[in-house]
Amino acid sequence: MTAAAAATALRIHGGRVDLAASAYPDAPQPWIDLSTGINPTAYPIPTLAAAAFARLPLTTELDELCAAAAEAYGLPGGAVVLPAPGSEIAIRLAPLVLTPPQPSIAQVGILGPTYGSHAAAWRAAGAQVHELGALPDPQAHFDVVVLVNPNNPDGHLIAPEPLADFAECWTASGKRLVIDEAFGDLRPELSVLGGAALPRGVVVLRSLGKFFGLAGLRLGFVVVNAGDAPRWRDLLGDWAASGPACTIATAALRDKAWIAATRSRLAADRGRLDATLAAAQLEPRGGTDLFGFYESADDGDLVDRFARAGILIRGFDHSPRLYRFGLPADEPAWQRLQRNCDTLSG
Amino acid sequence: MTAAAAATALRIHGGRVDLAASAYPDAPQPWIDLSTGINPTAYPIPTLAAAAFARLPLTTELDELCAAAAEAYGLPGGAVVLPAPGSEIAIRLAPLVLTPPQPSIAQVGILGPTYGSHAAAWRAAGAQVHELGALPDPQAHFDVVVLVNPNNPDGHLIAPEPLADFAECWTASGKRLVIDEAFGDLRPELSVLGGAALPRGVVVLRSLGKFFGLAGLRLGFVVVNAGDAPRWRDLLGDWAASGPACTIATAALRDKAWIAATRSRLAADRGRLDATLAAAQLEPRGGTDLFGFYESADDGDLVDRFARAGILIRGFDHSPRLYRFGLPADEPAWQRLQRNCDTLSG
Repeated sequence: MTAAAAATALRIHGGRVDLAASAYPDAPQPWIDLSTGINPTAYPIPTLAAAAFARLPLTTELDELCAAAAEAYGLPGGAVVLPAPGSEIAIRLAPLVLTPPQPSIAQVGILGPTYGSHAAAWRAAGAQVHELGALPDPQAHFDVVVLVNPNNPDGHLIAPEPLADFAECWTASGKRLVIDEAFGDLRPELSVLGGAALPRGVVVLRSLGKFFGLAGLRLGFVVVNAGDAPRWRDLLGDWAASGPACTIATAALRDKAWIAATRSRLAADRGRLDATLAAAQLEPRGGTDLFGFYESADDGDLVDRFARAGILIRGFDHSPRLYRFGLPADEPAWQRLQRNCDTLSG
Repeated sequence: MTAAAAATALRIHGGRVDLAASAYPDAPQPWIDLSTGINPTAYPIPTLAAAAFARLPLTTELDELCAAAAEAYGLPGGAVVLPAPGSEIAIRLAPLVLTPPQPSIAQVGILGPTYGSHAAAWRAAGAQVHELGALPDPQAHFDVVVLVNPNNPDGHLIAPEPLADFAECWTASGKRLVIDEAFGDLRPELSVLGGAALPRGVVVLRSLGKFFGLAGLRLGFVVVNAGDAPRWRDLLGDWAASGPACTIATAALRDKAWIAATRSRLAADRGRLDATLAAAQLEPRGGTDLFGFYESADDGDLVDRFARAGILIRGFDHSPRLYRFGLPADEPAWQRLQRNCDTLSG
């Protein structure tokens, strides 16, 4: 891949530190990857039985995993939780599940700017995608609305009560709603899954990748009304979670002490991130406790300037002065970030 | 789940030893699972970095995985190999990829009896499924032909040259062909991937679950003509293999010594299986070196009789006298199988 191609790829997804290293071969090592909203202190991997890799996940293991998810997330009346090999693949399948047999004629409104895979998935299915600034009027002529809550990258939140009201109203006429709660573990009281019921036509996505820091595990969940579950089951098949994912995620979702301690730590780290970046004239404009969303005081390309220092951050084509920074993993990374921010301001 | 429901579930897929244990609570422990064609001596799991679970798989790791697969499987001219989180999910997605926008009007011929998920996936998509006894005439009015080669459960093989000829002829008019080579690692010289080219419209599926014994890892591959790859990429997304799957499968696919030793061991074990089951009046009717396919001399329900002894085997609704037996994992399991075969014949 050429440096130019790598630079383009860096603006599509975070987490591509290998591409960054190829585009900036002279940058200091090791690379500090702040380009994602993934918790850099992942849930500790328990000892895994070799059998978890070898035999098919047992029905009881998959059931336990789903029960742990339902308890951790909440499960509205009539809803079921289904594992998926990454919430990314669930995003990709949503057009096929929600608008059969012809996703290509769907009109889809996506609250944005937001995580790019939603629009990519619907466009790949041939749908017309419209970016929305807010929840549409319930009479609006979209077949599907997609929103990420809290939103990535700006952290914008829609409170659960008005969202539940919208969901009920919107789906009453057969329209569909995708609610991506990939960052929903930080403030569970704001999840739509805490509500009384999940209407048919609503899909809620959860992820083990972000808060639990287990992006490499490729595990997410689809939560839907039981009436909508068969089509998802048809596509995901009988073993949509790996054996290691069953073991690790069941433990993680049930580990209330780790979850509580992690929420506190992430909140403290996010405060430190704001303070650190202030030295580089970066003003917080939103985010969650897993990432901050900042506006730069000048027009320079900070992705490039930080990359020259071996620090990968996320920029956005749609807003050249806005940047997302994830949390440094350890004290040396915090110090390097601090030094580079001081240098930028100097 | 009731015992009756468990008994039904046992006839849909192998590997459900937990359901068997619930349906037969008085059976001796531990259960011996011979209900799958999964190598019971899995590829040894290398040490995994915690980062493999935590961060997103890197582009370079995914590229290495695909390169290892291409080298192990062969890669015809113009073809690409794409990872999938289990070949099962690729089977489920095939109707959506191969017959958009309306899989519901497809006429699909499946060489059978064979692995049930193919028909299940096409029926779930609304297609008309027809079971075929042999490759159809190229003029036949199917949109898609699906075959498993070698076939599961009978081991039936179609040689690569006539299959390549059929593939070229069949797809020349825009028709599609799915070739599931889940058991293709045993005799690589018989894979269609050894051929010169892979025409558009052909999908070849491979699996890490069977020969490598890594069913819990949930990793498979889709091999297609590069022209057919974008739609698969759209659906599978950018991280279709987990971090552990990248590490383990790259090592496994490159371990030529293990692969060669395993082929020899499985061939010897398959011979021992035939000899062992002969005592129970079970005549080999086919199979591969990972499983045998046997006909019983009497009408008794051997699934039930072996289950009472804590041994799970696979029966088939379509052929009540036919059974599939996988390979015992260790000497105690061989001995228990032998004793039970002796008892059955006594």
